[in-house]
Amino acid sequence: MQFGSKRIHRGRVINLDVDTVRFPDGSTGELEMVRHPGAAAVVPVASDPNGDDPTLLLIKQYRYATDGELLEIPAGRLNPGEDPADCAKRELLEEVGVSAGRVERLTTIWTTPGFTDEKIHLFWATDLKTGQHAREPDEFIEVSPTLLSDALTLIREGRISDAKTVVGILYIAGFILGY
Amino acid sequence: MQFGSKRIHRGRVINLDVDTVRFPDGSTGELEMVRHPGAAAVVPVASDPNGDDPTLLLIKQYRYATDGELLEIPAGRLNPGEDPADCAKRELLEEVGVSAGRVERLTTIWTTPGFTDEKIHLFWATDLKTGQHAREPDEFIEVSPTLLSDALTLIREGRISDAKTVVGILYIAGFILGY
Repeated sequence: MQFGSKRIHRGRVINLDVDTVRFPDGSTGELEMVRHPGAAAVVPVASDPNGDDPTLLLIKQYRYATDGELLEIPAGRLNPGEDPADCAKRELLEEVGVSAGRVERLTTIWTTPGFTDEKIHLFWATDLKTGQHAREPDEFIEVSPTLLSDALTLIREGRISDAKTVVGILYIAGFILGY
Repeated sequence: MQFGSKRIHRGRVINLDVDTVRFPDGSTGELEMVRHPGAAAVVPVASDPNGDDPTLLLIKQYRYATDGELLEIPAGRLNPGEDPADCAKRELLEEVGVSAGRVERLTTIWTTPGFTDEKIHLFWATDLKTGQHAREPDEFIEVSPTLLSDALTLIREGRISDAKTVVGILYIAGFILGY
């Protein structure tokens, strides 16, 4: 479909291309496309997932884009060639300070396919053990243990509003824990 | 937090800025920020929402970013000053060809706050009446009526993978229809 591509910006996190493309009906046009290496995110389930109301180790994170803090699941960009499950484990240790005995795949989402090719591979982690934080210098993170029941209330009320976090929590609540 | 901003690209859908910012600890750095006007999206529920298994009017849409079709809820960018609910109604008519007697707010999500300020206001629509399609020239859309039960299976299996669509469907399934 693509027969032309112009790199407008090569950045630290993303690149921006303007591509000339042919659409399904044969017409052509220009599309802005933010290129992203992809990411992994993980719902850390601290207590027995078969218990009545497990605790999720969420993080409060300052986000420049929202000019405030968001309550999120740990996540990060894939390194070149990195397996998404390994990335999820790495981010869990870096951001929450725990290692996981089990990390299982949930699904993969396109964050906003109108203008970026970013996809996020979602996991959930259990059998957690305390490890050593290793945050990036520009990450401002506080671990916020949250009961699943409270997390669902926060989602319903719009107080958890990060898309990957909403998807990850509703996915395990509905499809895995039968909550 | 911001004390410098350089517009790298002024585009059709998005703008790209590189901002110089001060982080919570007083350090400074550069951040790439994709500026987006925001969007509205709507879950069209075709039959009685109190029925056992309502039908959602999803759309199959070609997406250049994914190099294929995605199954999504109708959505679109806010026009300048536009009320998100009005945008949801407009996109529902343009993309699905129905007008809605009732459009109610679900929540608002940040699509991917690491690099964009885009937020999507989510609604659900009932009391639907056939209207007139009015698609944009670069939209390639087919309406795909889907039972809620089938939509949940498609989400569980990763075959519905657009973030706003997953959030919208899981939200009404869990919090409104008690599915």
